[in-house]
Amino acid sequence: MSESETVEITGHLMDQGILSRVLDDIREYGGDYTIDRFDVGRETDDASHAVITVTTEDEEGLQRLLMRLQTRGVNMVDPGEAEVAAATMDGVFPDGFYSSTNLDTRVRIDGRWLNVGNPEMDCGLVLERNEHGAPHRVFTLPMSDVRAGMQVVCGASGVQVSIPRPAKAAGTFGFMESEVSSEKPQAVLVRQVAEGMREAKAAGKRVLWVGGPGVVHTGAAPAMVAMVNAGYVDVLFAGNALATHDIEAALYGTSLGIDLAMGSGVEHGHEHHIRALNTIRKEGSIAKAVENGVLTGGIMHALVTHDKEFVLVGSVRDDGPLPDVYTDVLEGQRAMRSHLTDVGFCLMVATMLHSVATGNILPASIPLVCVDINPATVTKLADRGSSQARGIVTDVGLFLEQLAVELVPDYRRA
Amino acid sequence: MSESETVEITGHLMDQGILSRVLDDIREYGGDYTIDRFDVGRETDDASHAVITVTTEDEEGLQRLLMRLQTRGVNMVDPGEAEVAAATMDGVFPDGFYSSTNLDTRVRIDGRWLNVGNPEMDCGLVLERNEHGAPHRVFTLPMSDVRAGMQVVCGASGVQVSIPRPAKAAGTFGFMESEVSSEKPQAVLVRQVAEGMREAKAAGKRVLWVGGPGVVHTGAAPAMVAMVNAGYVDVLFAGNALATHDIEAALYGTSLGIDLAMGSGVEHGHEHHIRALNTIRKEGSIAKAVENGVLTGGIMHALVTHDKEFVLVGSVRDDGPLPDVYTDVLEGQRAMRSHLTDVGFCLMVATMLHSVATGNILPASIPLVCVDINPATVTKLADRGSSQARGIVTDVGLFLEQLAVELVPDYRRA
Amino acid sequence: MSESETVEITGHLMDQGILSRVLDDIREYGGDYTIDRFDVGRETDDASHAVITVTTEDEEGLQRLLMRLQTRGVNMVDPGEAEVAAATMDGVFPDGFYSSTNLDTRVRIDGRWLNVGNPEMDCGLVLERNEHGAPHRVFTLPMSDVRAGMQVVCGASGVQVSIPRPAKAAGTFGFMESEVSSEKPQAVLVRQVAEGMREAKAAGKRVLWVGGPGVVHTGAAPAMVAMVNAGYVDVLFAGNALATHDIEAALYGTSLGIDLAMGSGVEHGHEHHIRALNTIRKEGSIAKAVENGVLTGGIMHALVTHDKEFVLVGSVRDDGPLPDVYTDVLEGQRAMRSHLTDVGFCLMVATMLHSVATGNILPASIPLVCVDINPATVTKLADRGSSQARGIVTDVGLFLEQLAVELVPDYRRA
Amino acid sequence: MSESETVEITGHLMDQGILSRVLDDIREYGGDYTIDRFDVGRETDDASHAVITVTTEDEEGLQRLLMRLQTRGVNMVDPGEAEVAAATMDGVFPDGFYSSTNLDTRVRIDGRWLNVGNPEMDCGLVLERNEHGAPHRVFTLPMSDVRAGMQVVCGASGVQVSIPRPAKAAGTFGFMESEVSSEKPQAVLVRQVAEGMREAKAAGKRVLWVGGPGVVHTGAAPAMVAMVNAGYVDVLFAGNALATHDIEAALYGTSLGIDLAMGSGVEHGHEHHIRALNTIRKEGSIAKAVENGVLTGGIMHALVTHDKEFVLVGSVRDDGPLPDVYTDVLEGQRAMRSHLTDVGFCLMVATMLHSVATGNILPASIPLVCVDINPATVTKLADRGSSQARGIVTDVGLFLEQLAVELVPDYRRA
Repeated sequence: MSESETVEITGHLMDQGILSRVLDDIREYGGDYTIDRFDVGRETDDASHAVITVTTEDEEGLQRLLMRLQTRGVNMVDPGEAEVAAATMDGVFPDGFYSSTNLDTRVRIDGRWLNVGNPEMDCGLVLERNEHGAPHRVFTLPMSDVRAGMQVVCGASGVQVSIPRPAKAAGTFGFMESEVSSEKPQAVLVRQVAEGMREAKAAGKRVLWVGGPGVVHTGAAPAMVAMVNAGYVDVLFAGNALATHDIEAALYGTSLGIDLAMGSGVEHGHEHHIRALNTIRKEGSIAKAVENGVLTGGIMHALVTHDKEFVLVGSVRDDGPLPDVYTDVLEGQRAMRSHLTDVGFCLMVATMLHSVATGNILPASIPLVCVDINPATVTKLADRGSSQARGIVTDVGLFLEQLAVELVPDYRRA
Repeated sequence: MSESETVEITGHLMDQGILSRVLDDIREYGGDYTIDRFDVGRETDDASHAVITVTTEDEEGLQRLLMRLQTRGVNMVDPGEAEVAAATMDGVFPDGFYSSTNLDTRVRIDGRWLNVGNPEMDCGLVLERNEHGAPHRVFTLPMSDVRAGMQVVCGASGVQVSIPRPAKAAGTFGFMESEVSSEKPQAVLVRQVAEGMREAKAAGKRVLWVGGPGVVHTGAAPAMVAMVNAGYVDVLFAGNALATHDIEAALYGTSLGIDLAMGSGVEHGHEHHIRALNTIRKEGSIAKAVENGVLTGGIMHALVTHDKEFVLVGSVRDDGPLPDVYTDVLEGQRAMRSHLTDVGFCLMVATMLHSVATGNILPASIPLVCVDINPATVTKLADRGSSQARGIVTDVGLFLEQLAVELVPDYRRA
Repeated sequence: MSESETVEITGHLMDQGILSRVLDDIREYGGDYTIDRFDVGRETDDASHAVITVTTEDEEGLQRLLMRLQTRGVNMVDPGEAEVAAATMDGVFPDGFYSSTNLDTRVRIDGRWLNVGNPEMDCGLVLERNEHGAPHRVFTLPMSDVRAGMQVVCGASGVQVSIPRPAKAAGTFGFMESEVSSEKPQAVLVRQVAEGMREAKAAGKRVLWVGGPGVVHTGAAPAMVAMVNAGYVDVLFAGNALATHDIEAALYGTSLGIDLAMGSGVEHGHEHHIRALNTIRKEGSIAKAVENGVLTGGIMHALVTHDKEFVLVGSVRDDGPLPDVYTDVLEGQRAMRSHLTDVGFCLMVATMLHSVATGNILPASIPLVCVDINPATVTKLADRGSSQARGIVTDVGLFLEQLAVELVPDYRRA
Repeated sequence: MSESETVEITGHLMDQGILSRVLDDIREYGGDYTIDRFDVGRETDDASHAVITVTTEDEEGLQRLLMRLQTRGVNMVDPGEAEVAAATMDGVFPDGFYSSTNLDTRVRIDGRWLNVGNPEMDCGLVLERNEHGAPHRVFTLPMSDVRAGMQVVCGASGVQVSIPRPAKAAGTFGFMESEVSSEKPQAVLVRQVAEGMREAKAAGKRVLWVGGPGVVHTGAAPAMVAMVNAGYVDVLFAGNALATHDIEAALYGTSLGIDLAMGSGVEHGHEHHIRALNTIRKEGSIAKAVENGVLTGGIMHALVTHDKEFVLVGSVRDDGPLPDVYTDVLEGQRAMRSHLTDVGFCLMVATMLHSVATGNILPASIPLVCVDINPATVTKLADRGSSQARGIVTDVGLFLEQLAVELVPDYRRA
């Protein structure tokens, strides 16, 4: 082993088990460490500060370990200057490119620190210079969007990240520790999510929902409609399925209404589904179907009526799909990114695919709650790097019902 | 193959897939069949009637197949007379004993049909004669309770069962088909369970609850207390855990109250738990702890205060246990049996062990709903013969919260 | 109610519970029925035959119910002639279009029956006439691919379907009834899947695999490579994740190899992942990476080396993606369809998304086994119309390990 | 706040996240802390040492917090002398009794340290003096077994615990970090469990198995029999179900054998089950049934034949039960405790109830692996204080099959 670097981290290291994970990472990358200094907060609320020298076999391994450690909020003591190389092919980063985190990030170029405007994990950092050649801005860019000639940050030098303050300190929205469990007092959790949404709105931020078709299947569409009407749904990310099932329920109200009311599930193979798709395709878009009086109820109708945004991104299992659906997933991702502005709270309900997709592009600073009856969805989300994710394993239908009761004063179950 | 018998069954055979299961059973037991006659209900609501000749290799196999088929409601066309043999040892049935079903059953002895008072599956049928030697009554008895000399029905001759009318026909409480799913409109299901309880009470019947500690962990104790107070909990079957966690929460209100309110789970290893047990053991019983003012809140307190019944049966994982707990499981089963009188509705919540135990002793005629976040609990219950079980896969905390809202007019969340 | 039609169905109606489901469908669609005739197979192996008159309120409801019933294999006694209408817009079927099933289907046009070559559910049936105006062929077409002017079958008249013979009768591959369970003797199931693959190969058919990244995570890549080498993987449908994780493991062998060997999961946020993607993107394709000696091991390498086919379709959560990935899901679906030729067996492993997507386009006549540790995946597949699906709830890693032992004579664990 | 105490802990505090949990405990108990000193291991393998002053509102709260912290391995810097009080009632500890941990423990009495022979969590520590009044020994005793007059340790003074060395340092058996996951390379895990068993045997220790009926249902009985024969099963803890299903399969070999081989599950309601119970009850015990040639195969037969020990403890859902079953759960717990001598490895398979029960009485120093297809079982075990538990979420049938291949040289699947 010959390459080493001294790094540091500050925060509630032990409360949150961060230091354990940092040391795990070092071992996992085949590195070694010496803890040079560890100032632990003496009192309950003090932050700790650790200085660690990490050693690896070669320089490449060191750079990769340093990038890995940055996902935990660990920075080099002496960050130096960022190195930049030009991409030589479209859609391909230069070798040794810096793989970004979703933490607040700044990059030192020509002796100046530039903040990265849109932190997103697993992207490259692209440097733009102004007409005088001075560093102008650094932004994250997904691999598929890079173009030959762009200047891309390489290695970990000159990059610094900062971890968000722990939720507890930051306000009331710190309801759950790291664990995912189905045995929590659910009524309290509902209230805390409601509080989180209210705080976001009070701060002038927007609330992002990510939903799966389970929202409709569990009978929660009326609750969600009430929350759209009350202004608690600013943006919806979903797939073809949520929108289609919602529209299906709205179009074939009587029959499907009975099914929903009687609790007998109706899935695929029913021509309701395919016929609903055909109907909206004929109109040209969901908005036009609303305008033309074809679609008169449900979640999608409420969103259109209140001028709320939605991004529907397709998947390989889709029928139809609805005309509003992005069938190209990269275009879908771009559309999702463009709707993240001013989002201050994110609620994910009953979808693993779109939750992970949203987790991939969401900055770590945005509070994120994931509700699913399947614990695996929440675990998956946290595993993939959305460490701020808080999970609630519960029934989606009852959860949204109660959330509507909390948020919408005159909401009554039909 | 040389032994055969002609059997018949009447009911909504196809709606409920019963006939498929009957034919599966015949094959599973290595038998063969000929369908002699099959009168299918012509109209939607008509019952069907099938006559089938089953054939097996030998007499013993035939008797066993006939007993098996009776669990489906299949009777011999010519039932004949019951055969009876004396038990020769305590706790052991005679060879070839009739293994009972949980269906309404009658037995023909000396040319007379006697109704079996307490249908329970997997028991023996014991015949009592009066002082004149005339058949007096037939009752189910579990294997461990049989005593040498008792007269036990052997083989399937002379035994007839009848399947309950399908729930749909019987009234409003037929909310779910055979499937277990987490994607059902939950609010409707809550309402249907409330309706089932109200119907039972209106008919002068009692409501039996079977609960696990999840009731307390999910924060639903206040909801359950409200339902005890409102008269919707007549009997509770549970283990040491539900009662101890409930008492723990009541005794160490402040600290554990915070835990519950903050959503951080507190399980074992905490001395709260073991200290709560010691406290109640010192009082001698839960009732005395209430009387002495030691226990002043929670589910167990509510039951004692309202003179409701509870049966707590221990398990091998118990600490303590509470002084009220039956540590002998056979005594526990006997206590449970003795509390089934007049039960007209059974709700099982968040416990696989006690749900299956209750399913084992409950007549098929009592409506049964099982609520659990884990689909396996419901499936297990149905697999083990409680075919009347209706399953709801949902969050127990939110479910009980909403059930209390349905049942208790002035119930408001704290 | 005034519209009615007489329909019939032949098969092992009671063994498989088909008739129950047919009657459920009729009720669900608000219809009514009279069973005119029901000839039940007298002996164990005889097929049954039912004639049923169904009645609905109006003609549109009747047509839709008839289409629904066809998904169960129910045909009109008097099918009549197919009605055809021209599509007036691209991507939109005419109103009242016939929504196809995945059963073998034939259509009567101008008094002639034409077989539908590629049965697929939820498509339209498009009629092509030859230069003389005579009916030439009828084929399924997904909604998004229809073009204005195409002749599309409308209503259920003139369409007949036939259900596949039950697997039991057809050969040894009938291992599981309808139930999904984790409590089955797994060794037997492994052997039956091996047998199904061998039969397909012996019949000159191809074996289709559908896989998720769990194949790599559970350490089963070597087993799968051995089966590719032995000729038991002709086509692979997957997403970006399986291929990327496989390539990641191959490229960063040492480090990730240790992780895999030590059992510590490595998910997202690791720059391995994103770096592996960049490396292959630089090469231009997986095949070129193999050709250039960059990729030298793993599943994708084995497929390329043996000239096997793979279709990778992207999803909204993808990073990268690999250059071979279809980012447009409709194009991905088309590519999958074009690789179904001569497929005689399909094994789905550890992926809900791609399993459902494949189930959507697979004819019902192709044996289909779905292996997942999550029972919901299998249930979902069956719910969505792939009624031929057999589910095995087991550990994917151990399952593939044992399958390789069964299929590859000299396979030994490393 | 006025009561405080200085405590210390030594070990790999950060690697294992112990310190985070200690601080969580302090907060949870409403206490406060100051970290007086924290010497972190400088090199990768060095242990850390922390000295913390904890403060609570009152003395009782302090004592309880100190006991709680001992479950993490935290001791008082100045432990002082143990305080002892006499129990005044049978089955009830004195107020303020010390609630034990499952860690190696010693107690200072009259200036001497006495080791506690049988560490078990949630018990009292009972002091025995010799005829001269000198402290003779201290042992754990469950609450229900305490008798009036016994001397019981109260408060945390004079008690010291030590955490086991981390498995990694201790040898090869450290395969898994804290996480429970179904996505691990399973073949490696099988090998590590085999290695753990071989090490235990090589060290002259015994291997304890804890099993549920899933062992039989998944077809793994032959594999387990092979491992009994090969000497890798010294003791079995189970319930009535495992033994009965095993015996059922052995007695009704042909028919049930077919069921197992065909993969169709047979659960309850079948008279096989109840008849098998009656047969063994008639013999008087499983051993006599083997002796008399009634029981000639299966797991229980193998255990009897090889003079291996088993403890079957009943539960409220049992039928029968078998004559060997402890129907009193406290007697069952005592029997289990008495069979823990010299156990050096514990494997838990497919049972939540008996796994938790065994976890309750097992010292923390015994390596413990829990295998289940349900992640909740493993999580539950760890939650309840068995922090040494390693979990493998996998298919039990395939796991045991492969374990037999690893452990038994000539094991071949039938």
